[in-house]
Amino acid sequence: MADQKMLAKETIEKLEWLSQFGKDPEGGVTRLLYSKEWVQAQHALKEWMENEGLDVHFDEVGNLFGTLKGKNTDETILTGSHVDSVKNGGIYDGPYGIVAGILAINYLNEKYGEPLRNIEVVSMAEEEGSRFPYTFWGSKNIVGTAKRSEVEQITDFKGVPFVEAMKESGFGFRDESKEPRNDLKAFVEVHIEQGSVLETEHKSVGVVTSIVGQRRFTVEVTGEANHAGTTPMGYRKDAVYAASQMVFDLISMARKAGDPLVTTVGKIEAQPNIVNVVPGKAIFTIDVRHTDKDAIVSFTEEITAKINEISKEHGVETTINMWMDADPVPMDPKVVGIIEQKCKENGLNYKVMHSGAGHDSQIFAPFVPTAMLFVPSLKGISHNPAEYTAPEDLAEGVKALIGALYELAYK
Amino acid sequence: MADQKMLAKETIEKLEWLSQFGKDPEGGVTRLLYSKEWVQAQHALKEWMENEGLDVHFDEVGNLFGTLKGKNTDETILTGSHVDSVKNGGIYDGPYGIVAGILAINYLNEKYGEPLRNIEVVSMAEEEGSRFPYTFWGSKNIVGTAKRSEVEQITDFKGVPFVEAMKESGFGFRDESKEPRNDLKAFVEVHIEQGSVLETEHKSVGVVTSIVGQRRFTVEVTGEANHAGTTPMGYRKDAVYAASQMVFDLISMARKAGDPLVTTVGKIEAQPNIVNVVPGKAIFTIDVRHTDKDAIVSFTEEITAKINEISKEHGVETTINMWMDADPVPMDPKVVGIIEQKCKENGLNYKVMHSGAGHDSQIFAPFVPTAMLFVPSLKGISHNPAEYTAPEDLAEGVKALIGALYELAYK
Repeated sequence: MADQKMLAKETIEKLEWLSQFGKDPEGGVTRLLYSKEWVQAQHALKEWMENEGLDVHFDEVGNLFGTLKGKNTDETILTGSHVDSVKNGGIYDGPYGIVAGILAINYLNEKYGEPLRNIEVVSMAEEEGSRFPYTFWGSKNIVGTAKRSEVEQITDFKGVPFVEAMKESGFGFRDESKEPRNDLKAFVEVHIEQGSVLETEHKSVGVVTSIVGQRRFTVEVTGEANHAGTTPMGYRKDAVYAASQMVFDLISMARKAGDPLVTTVGKIEAQPNIVNVVPGKAIFTIDVRHTDKDAIVSFTEEITAKINEISKEHGVETTINMWMDADPVPMDPKVVGIIEQKCKENGLNYKVMHSGAGHDSQIFAPFVPTAMLFVPSLKGISHNPAEYTAPEDLAEGVKALIGALYELAYK
Repeated sequence: MADQKMLAKETIEKLEWLSQFGKDPEGGVTRLLYSKEWVQAQHALKEWMENEGLDVHFDEVGNLFGTLKGKNTDETILTGSHVDSVKNGGIYDGPYGIVAGILAINYLNEKYGEPLRNIEVVSMAEEEGSRFPYTFWGSKNIVGTAKRSEVEQITDFKGVPFVEAMKESGFGFRDESKEPRNDLKAFVEVHIEQGSVLETEHKSVGVVTSIVGQRRFTVEVTGEANHAGTTPMGYRKDAVYAASQMVFDLISMARKAGDPLVTTVGKIEAQPNIVNVVPGKAIFTIDVRHTDKDAIVSFTEEITAKINEISKEHGVETTINMWMDADPVPMDPKVVGIIEQKCKENGLNYKVMHSGAGHDSQIFAPFVPTAMLFVPSLKGISHNPAEYTAPEDLAEGVKALIGALYELAYK
C-alpha cells in the first residue's frame, strides 16, 4: 500500500497550491463559478493532469476531465469532486476530492500500469450555489439534467448574468439534444465529512451508504403587534411567545426521535423586532433530514400537527410553507460493499455512515452506481477558513480511494 | 359643562390643522425635534395661543408656553404635552395634550374669567427620542435636569449634530446656573392611552395613578454553530433551542404573575441566521414593567434564575445584561383625588388605571404635583398613522381636564 507519510505530504502540498487561486484577503478561499480565480484553478489543474500523462479535456460547461485510458475504453470509473468554493471557504471542501483522485490514479498507474477500464478524475465546475442561485451545475451537466432554460435568466449578487460570466470564462452550454455519456460504470467521490462524527469516534475514513433527504420549511406566525407597556398579558397575541413554544417543542421532538433524524431552526425573526413592541409576527425556518423518506414524512406530519395545535392554543395564525423536499439518495450497495471490503483488507480505521450534507454524488446516483468516502473535519467545521483535516487522515482517504479504484478498474 | 359635540369638533379640527406641519408622504406625521416642520408647528401654535389672548413665550430650548394670568401670578397650574412625533406617527400622540390644554383654558376663561392662579399650557419641544438618542428634552429642561453635556456630542441618524440643529431652529441651551422655575403648583397632562384597556372596558377617560417602572435586558446565548445536516442532535449546543425554552418560560411566568406585570421579548436574533446552520448564538431582549419596584426586582430575580437554570441544562453560555432600570413614578395622590372627584361629579365614564408607557409626567412628578388623564386608543395603536381616538372621547378628555384645571386654579 502507498506510503502514508508521502501521501499526506503530497495531498496537503497540492491542496495548498490549489488554494492560491482564490485566496481571499478577508480569509480563506473564494473561488466562485466562472470567476477569474476559478478559470485559473481549472487551467492549473489541467496542466497538472497533463503533466501526469492523463488525457485531458474540458466539456462545454467547464467540467475538467483527466483520463488514464484502460484496455476497454468504453467503460469508465469516475472519481473527483467540485472545484468551486463558498465565499471565504476552506481549502478542502471540493478540491480534496480532485487532488485525491489525481494522486490515486498516479499511484495506480505507477504500480499497476494500464487498467482494464478507464479511470477518470473530474474537477467539476460548480456544486455550492455560492455565486448564482443554482447548485450542482457541474454534475447535473455530466448526467444531463441541467437545463439551459434554468440559468438563462439568473444573475449573481452583483447583477452579472450567468450566461455572460460563462461566456467570458470561455465556456458555453452543452448540446441538450445529445445523449449524456454512457461509459460511466461507477462514480466514487471523496470529500470531507463537514460534521464531527468521525472525529468524535476517532475514525479516519467514512464509507457513506446514503445521503439524507431533506425538507425545508418557513413557518410564519401572525399575532398582533402591541405596545409592550400598555398591553396587559391577557390582551396579547404575542407571535414570539407562540413561536418559542413551537421551536422548543419541535426540537425536543427531534431529539427524542434520535439518529439519524436531525432538525434545525437556523433562522428566526421577529417583526417589528423592537424591544418595546409585542411582536406581531415571528418567522422561522425548519430543516429536517433523515436517510429514510418515510421517517421524514412522518416527522413532518408530527411537527405540523404540533405547530398547528400550539397556534390554536395561542390564538395566532400560522402558515407552514415547505419549499424544499429532496428524497434521500442511497449509494450503490455493490460499490459500497467493494469499498468497505477493501478498507477492511487494507486495515483502514473506517466507519460506515450516512451523509447529512448534500454532494455531487446525489446527482450521479440515479444514473451511475455511486459511492462516497469521507475524511474527518476538525470540530465539524466547513465553509470556513478554519476547515481542517489532519494530513494523516487525508492520506487515509486517498488510500481508501486507491483501493476502491483498483477493485473497480483493474478487476 | 362644555358642549360635547362642539368640543369634539374643535379638538379634531385643531389636531388635523396641526398635523399639516410634518405630514409625511410615506404616511402619518413626522415632526422631529428642531426640524423645519417642528419649527412651523411651534410657531403656528404660538400664533393660535396669542389669538386666544394668552401671554406667550418660548424658553431657551424651544418649549412654548401660553399663560392665562391669575390673580396670584406666583402660582401656576401647568398642562400640555409634547409637540414632536416619531417617524410616521399619528396625529394624537403629544398634540392632543396641547390642543386639549388650549381649549380647556379658553373654556375656563370664557366661562369663569380670571383664575386665582395662572393656568399655563405648554407645547414641549421633545419627548420621543426619535431624532436624537435623547428623550424628554422638553420636560427635563423645564424641571432643570437636562444637561448641556448630555447632548453636546450627539448627532441624528443623518449625522447632524444636536447643537447645530438646535441653533438653526433658533434655540439654544438654557442657563444651567439659574434655578428652574418654582411657580409650578401642579402639572396635568392629557394623552392618548396607547393601549386598549379603556377601549376594551368601554371607558372614555383614564385617571392615571402611576407610571410603570421598567427594566430592559439583552440576553445573549452562546452555543456552537454547526452544520445542520452532519451534526447529530446529541452533538449540538443549539443556541436557539436554549433561547426558545427561556423565552417560552419567562413569558409564561409573566402571564402567571398577572397584572400589572407585563413582560415582552420584542427582539430576537439568531447567528449566523442561516437555514442550514445550527445557530451558535441567539440574542433576545426582555422588557419588564410593573407599577411596584419590588415586584420588578423580584420578577427579575425569578427570570434570571430560570434563564441560568435552562442555560446550564443546555450546556450553553448565557449573559444577561440589564441596560435600563427606571423606577415606577407615582402620580400625586392629592391631584389624582381632585381629578377623580371631578370626573365623578361631572358624570364622566372614567377608569382609575396606571400607565404602561413613559410620559413627560414622569419627569415632572419628582418636582411638581403631577397627574395624567388618558383617552382611549383604537386597538391600542400608537406611533402609527392608524392611531385614532373617537372625537367624542377626545371631548370627554378635554372635559376632564377642564374640571381638573378649574379645581386647581380657581379654588
